[in-house]
Amino acid sequence: MRDFSYRGLKRAYGYDEVALVPGAITVNPDQTDIRLTIGERTLEIPFLASAMDGVVDPDFAIAMGKLGGLAVLNLEGVQTRYEDPASVLARVAEAAPAEATRLLQQAYAEPIKDRLVAERVQQIKAGGVSAAVSATPTTALHLGPIAAEAGVDFFVVQSTVTTARHVSSTYPLLSFTDLRKSLRIPLLVGNSVSYAAALELMETGIDALLVGVGPGAACTSRQVLGVGVPQVTATMDCAAAREHYFKSSGRYVAIITDGGMSTGGDICKSIASGADGVMLGSPFARANEAPGGGFHWGMATPHASLPRGTRIHVGIKGSLEQILMGPTSLTDGTQNLVGALRIGMGMLGARNIKEMQQVEMVIAPAIRTEGKSYQMAQGLG
Amino acid sequence: MRDFSYRGLKRAYGYDEVALVPGAITVNPDQTDIRLTIGERTLEIPFLASAMDGVVDPDFAIAMGKLGGLAVLNLEGVQTRYEDPASVLARVAEAAPAEATRLLQQAYAEPIKDRLVAERVQQIKAGGVSAAVSATPTTALHLGPIAAEAGVDFFVVQSTVTTARHVSSTYPLLSFTDLRKSLRIPLLVGNSVSYAAALELMETGIDALLVGVGPGAACTSRQVLGVGVPQVTATMDCAAAREHYFKSSGRYVAIITDGGMSTGGDICKSIASGADGVMLGSPFARANEAPGGGFHWGMATPHASLPRGTRIHVGIKGSLEQILMGPTSLTDGTQNLVGALRIGMGMLGARNIKEMQQVEMVIAPAIRTEGKSYQMAQGLG
Amino acid sequence: MRDFSYRGLKRAYGYDEVALVPGAITVNPDQTDIRLTIGERTLEIPFLASAMDGVVDPDFAIAMGKLGGLAVLNLEGVQTRYEDPASVLARVAEAAPAEATRLLQQAYAEPIKDRLVAERVQQIKAGGVSAAVSATPTTALHLGPIAAEAGVDFFVVQSTVTTARHVSSTYPLLSFTDLRKSLRIPLLVGNSVSYAAALELMETGIDALLVGVGPGAACTSRQVLGVGVPQVTATMDCAAAREHYFKSSGRYVAIITDGGMSTGGDICKSIASGADGVMLGSPFARANEAPGGGFHWGMATPHASLPRGTRIHVGIKGSLEQILMGPTSLTDGTQNLVGALRIGMGMLGARNIKEMQQVEMVIAPAIRTEGKSYQMAQGLG
Amino acid sequence: MRDFSYRGLKRAYGYDEVALVPGAITVNPDQTDIRLTIGERTLEIPFLASAMDGVVDPDFAIAMGKLGGLAVLNLEGVQTRYEDPASVLARVAEAAPAEATRLLQQAYAEPIKDRLVAERVQQIKAGGVSAAVSATPTTALHLGPIAAEAGVDFFVVQSTVTTARHVSSTYPLLSFTDLRKSLRIPLLVGNSVSYAAALELMETGIDALLVGVGPGAACTSRQVLGVGVPQVTATMDCAAAREHYFKSSGRYVAIITDGGMSTGGDICKSIASGADGVMLGSPFARANEAPGGGFHWGMATPHASLPRGTRIHVGIKGSLEQILMGPTSLTDGTQNLVGALRIGMGMLGARNIKEMQQVEMVIAPAIRTEGKSYQMAQGLG
Repeated sequence: MRDFSYRGLKRAYGYDEVALVPGAITVNPDQTDIRLTIGERTLEIPFLASAMDGVVDPDFAIAMGKLGGLAVLNLEGVQTRYEDPASVLARVAEAAPAEATRLLQQAYAEPIKDRLVAERVQQIKAGGVSAAVSATPTTALHLGPIAAEAGVDFFVVQSTVTTARHVSSTYPLLSFTDLRKSLRIPLLVGNSVSYAAALELMETGIDALLVGVGPGAACTSRQVLGVGVPQVTATMDCAAAREHYFKSSGRYVAIITDGGMSTGGDICKSIASGADGVMLGSPFARANEAPGGGFHWGMATPHASLPRGTRIHVGIKGSLEQILMGPTSLTDGTQNLVGALRIGMGMLGARNIKEMQQVEMVIAPAIRTEGKSYQMAQGLG
Repeated sequence: MRDFSYRGLKRAYGYDEVALVPGAITVNPDQTDIRLTIGERTLEIPFLASAMDGVVDPDFAIAMGKLGGLAVLNLEGVQTRYEDPASVLARVAEAAPAEATRLLQQAYAEPIKDRLVAERVQQIKAGGVSAAVSATPTTALHLGPIAAEAGVDFFVVQSTVTTARHVSSTYPLLSFTDLRKSLRIPLLVGNSVSYAAALELMETGIDALLVGVGPGAACTSRQVLGVGVPQVTATMDCAAAREHYFKSSGRYVAIITDGGMSTGGDICKSIASGADGVMLGSPFARANEAPGGGFHWGMATPHASLPRGTRIHVGIKGSLEQILMGPTSLTDGTQNLVGALRIGMGMLGARNIKEMQQVEMVIAPAIRTEGKSYQMAQGLG
Repeated sequence: MRDFSYRGLKRAYGYDEVALVPGAITVNPDQTDIRLTIGERTLEIPFLASAMDGVVDPDFAIAMGKLGGLAVLNLEGVQTRYEDPASVLARVAEAAPAEATRLLQQAYAEPIKDRLVAERVQQIKAGGVSAAVSATPTTALHLGPIAAEAGVDFFVVQSTVTTARHVSSTYPLLSFTDLRKSLRIPLLVGNSVSYAAALELMETGIDALLVGVGPGAACTSRQVLGVGVPQVTATMDCAAAREHYFKSSGRYVAIITDGGMSTGGDICKSIASGADGVMLGSPFARANEAPGGGFHWGMATPHASLPRGTRIHVGIKGSLEQILMGPTSLTDGTQNLVGALRIGMGMLGARNIKEMQQVEMVIAPAIRTEGKSYQMAQGLG
Repeated sequence: MRDFSYRGLKRAYGYDEVALVPGAITVNPDQTDIRLTIGERTLEIPFLASAMDGVVDPDFAIAMGKLGGLAVLNLEGVQTRYEDPASVLARVAEAAPAEATRLLQQAYAEPIKDRLVAERVQQIKAGGVSAAVSATPTTALHLGPIAAEAGVDFFVVQSTVTTARHVSSTYPLLSFTDLRKSLRIPLLVGNSVSYAAALELMETGIDALLVGVGPGAACTSRQVLGVGVPQVTATMDCAAAREHYFKSSGRYVAIITDGGMSTGGDICKSIASGADGVMLGSPFARANEAPGGGFHWGMATPHASLPRGTRIHVGIKGSLEQILMGPTSLTDGTQNLVGALRIGMGMLGARNIKEMQQVEMVIAPAIRTEGKSYQMAQGLG
């Protein structure tokens, strides 16, 4: 039994509470290696795009793949429910704020078509890039084989919290071991935030773990359910499980921090916390190529009694290339994310992702001060 | 003597400073058992409504009972002072802001009628549900037997801070042991926040302890008197006393966190801190069924020289059923509180309240960041 | 040499960061004893008014004395520079904001008259109450004997930081031991914030120590010089020195927390931190009786190169009696300060100041949450 | 390998999180010795002006030298690119906000002229003061000898993060040992923030280390890259390296905290953290003598893909003499910085910089409270 003592409470940290410390070596940014390996496949840049309908459609996935990253297509969203998802997305974008939630609920009432699952995978593959798709644990056994048959390269099973052990009397437990064996492609599973849960999932044979449950203090999960862990600590805990599992099994499972990041600084901190890659939603929803047209909403699993996934206006800020590779005229850290990662690694003396996972991190809260403009003007900061 | 050393200061935590961590198991929400046992009686849902005049009248108590919870009627409020309390409540609701405090003070100047005490209990019982009433320590010995005779099921003795030992030269010490024996129904006492005080109260033979004194930083007690403890720590400390008392006596005293909660997340955190149930005021004052008509005010014990209990406008937001059971279109966590508790328990792998008391909790302050909307938009959070 | 290590940094706490915890006993407020003894004299209430020109003149001192407290008249302010200080004060109160600083500097250019020092003491004594006056270390040797001769009851030597050892080539070190012996009345000295400095001052034979240097984060000392300690920690450290000194010498030196308090809660926390009494400026500047007419400014020692003591508008909020004894219609804790202290002591089970110094205090930061109004509306908080 | 454990995270502190504690001795401010020695040369006041084009030109450097400090001229800025830099600076100051960044980028496209490097040094020397100039690591080997030949007294090599070991395949490693030997004048290098990096740089033979990378939470480095350390901790860590190096080598390397300070309090805290001197940008950009005409921008090293150095309006607030020596009518701590340092040292009982490095510092966060005006009005704070 747990000790009901405040002394037992561990402190969890988020992006705004830590900072990275330059050490005794610096490296030229152009000499940094930032590749990410998942299973037997390697991406040129460690960036994944979230399986969200406002972010990823086949065209976006192709653009992302050509830039070296990987976009995950949501197999339970509008892309597999409609022949012409663009018109549905356009209606969502054009809806008045009061209408949006109802319209989204309607849109997801349409059934998923197996034929469209295969078609979307083929569309992405036709673009000459790797294809990745996602399903929830309840649909994975059905949709996985269809996507695999269509030639998909990565399969993602994702729900708010996914564990290797789920207690339910209404449906059988999904075996990730069996799923991985039957699909024969890299399997990414999430989300998870704790050492024990991460370790159990790795032991099922998955290739990558998505980390992140209620990462931000303002998250719906945090507010409505009280559930969530800030991403720095969640990533550190899951990375510690990966190290332990690697030592005992010799198999390296990639840790991909998913959600809560908005700037290059957040991405650098995720890697420094032990991640091998990052999965982003909002930052990519702002791309010209994003199908949401400047709008963005949560995973397409509307819960009957607990509403989630409100439509958010993020605006269109630039091309996906600008967001990833720059150049940018924005100084808020939301563009040139790959450049920021390389420059950060250079300042911190990390030649590759494994070295970046070893840089020193300190707790340094982002207290907003009135001296803000002075500090920025120093130019060195 | 206390050491005048800062090292001796214990850190106390509130809802906004902690978060709950999913572990290696998840559970289907519909398989969670959330019953609350007080003495020999069991409630279907662990929700109590505060003994406040703007929240509970006999009709509200019936509605609450039918939904599985328990509403406590204030025996020192307008319900027992007036034949027709509804007209008094209507005047309070209609009063101009500047008038409200004076009107409240006038309303509570009318004497309590013993006959109405019995009548209100019988009204609730006539609705086919359990009845619960509350009195302060100074009136409990008089009002308790009247309510018991009328068939009340639970008796609550409540003041801002209640201890088993009260030093006074003006009135005799109330013996909870004697009161419990004479009433022969479950006795709930509060409020308390510390291990020692909780233990002493449990040893008097009470059935449940209400936890909460000045829970919020903005509370009157905190500001005017400097007195109060954030609810996570208060609940943990009192729950630790319950565990200790249970081990030594074999008797289980329910811990009910009272006050300071406004969302499902806060409720999940109370249970995770060791509570067996929660008592809410404001969230229920927003129900159509609440007698305050969208208004809400403190306990009816106006202090001559230290004003408290200002009328607060909370608005009417939905039916009691919506607030407790959903469905809801609000995303702020203030409705579908039972659903939120079950879903939170599911994500955290807790099949019942005792397991929910064991889930991992971390310190994760709710620092408000500018990246708020990004995080919400991630949808996973 | 100090270790340049962050691990060596002690955490200091202010009022907004702590809260007081009710224990296993409660006491009726009317049975609390709050007297304060300084040297051989005892005050009925442990409240002193700061030696500030906007707060204390002879009439205010008489009103304060009649209510049981003690107001300190500034011997280096307008009262001893002008026959008719009221007209000077009126000009300050009526000045346009841009004019006020210049006007204050002019006002304090007029020399101090020894004759007026004696006259002001006699005016207060004529009101039938004890008289207290203050001087800075450089003028204390000259003004002290004049005031003593005129019959003053308490002498205060005060500067921003006062130590028993001051390094200067321009004037001789003031010996508090000699001053105390020559004046033969209780000597209060301040301000101090550290254990070592407090202990050395007590060893010189002083009767009370004023605690407080740059107590607030927004203080001029803190901002301009980086110097200061939040009052909870400062009081705890000086109280620890008092306990040590009392054990070794058998002589009890009163600790008086000076500055930084604005509510009854802050006052309760000062006593709980180990203070025997409190000295307040702003809260009394808001009294009808305060000579500043709703305005307030720092100690009358304008520094040639470092400006301080800007005029602040605090407004007139009620009579001194209301501020100290109530009744009040304000709910912000700024009135009925004596009532708040007694009620707080009652909830905390403290029958007297020494017991109040032993109550439990926890660290509980005042994080401002959006749920503020809910918590207040709970009424129990 | 690093332990992926939150327990390993060190807490870093900034100016707003600490305060200085007066001890048992006080000193008259006019008896404080605040001289700074760098190599074989000594400055009367430990203040350096940052090598920024909006802050330092030859005239400003002369004014600074006459007041006892040292201004560093940027050898890669407008002063060495243009015969008539004043007209370029005037255009920047007059540009519309939207134009400024583009104009700055254009201005720095003009090549550096070796002849102007020598001329600017001679201009400063002609004013009868010491001359200091700065270059980045890539230009230092070329520009250093030119400046040395022209008679410069101090040479500064500075980039955002500078280490003794830099990994690059495009240019050879700069040897500070060789540079120091060839120039034969004091060599200042920066910026650095960690013990290990500072120690390695000291071992190369440098005379002073500039401390500061991303000092403020709002810094571009912190936001865009996540890189940076608050200055109190950065200074403490580098000062610890200095002490270690001094013990082992007998050579004392001056620590100069660079950036993030805006008030006298911040400067006092830097010295108390172990600095021997401070380097300021914005505070001096506000001087009448600053060439930026009330504007200020970052180091002249525009990065192709990551924009930095936005033009900031700081305004003109007074003469350099007022900013350093007072008198001042401002109460925000941004003027009379030398006076503030001396007065702070006096209150803290420090007779010289080495004693100031030993004063007690506590952690005392600057939580903004509503009681702000009260505390300020106390006048003692």
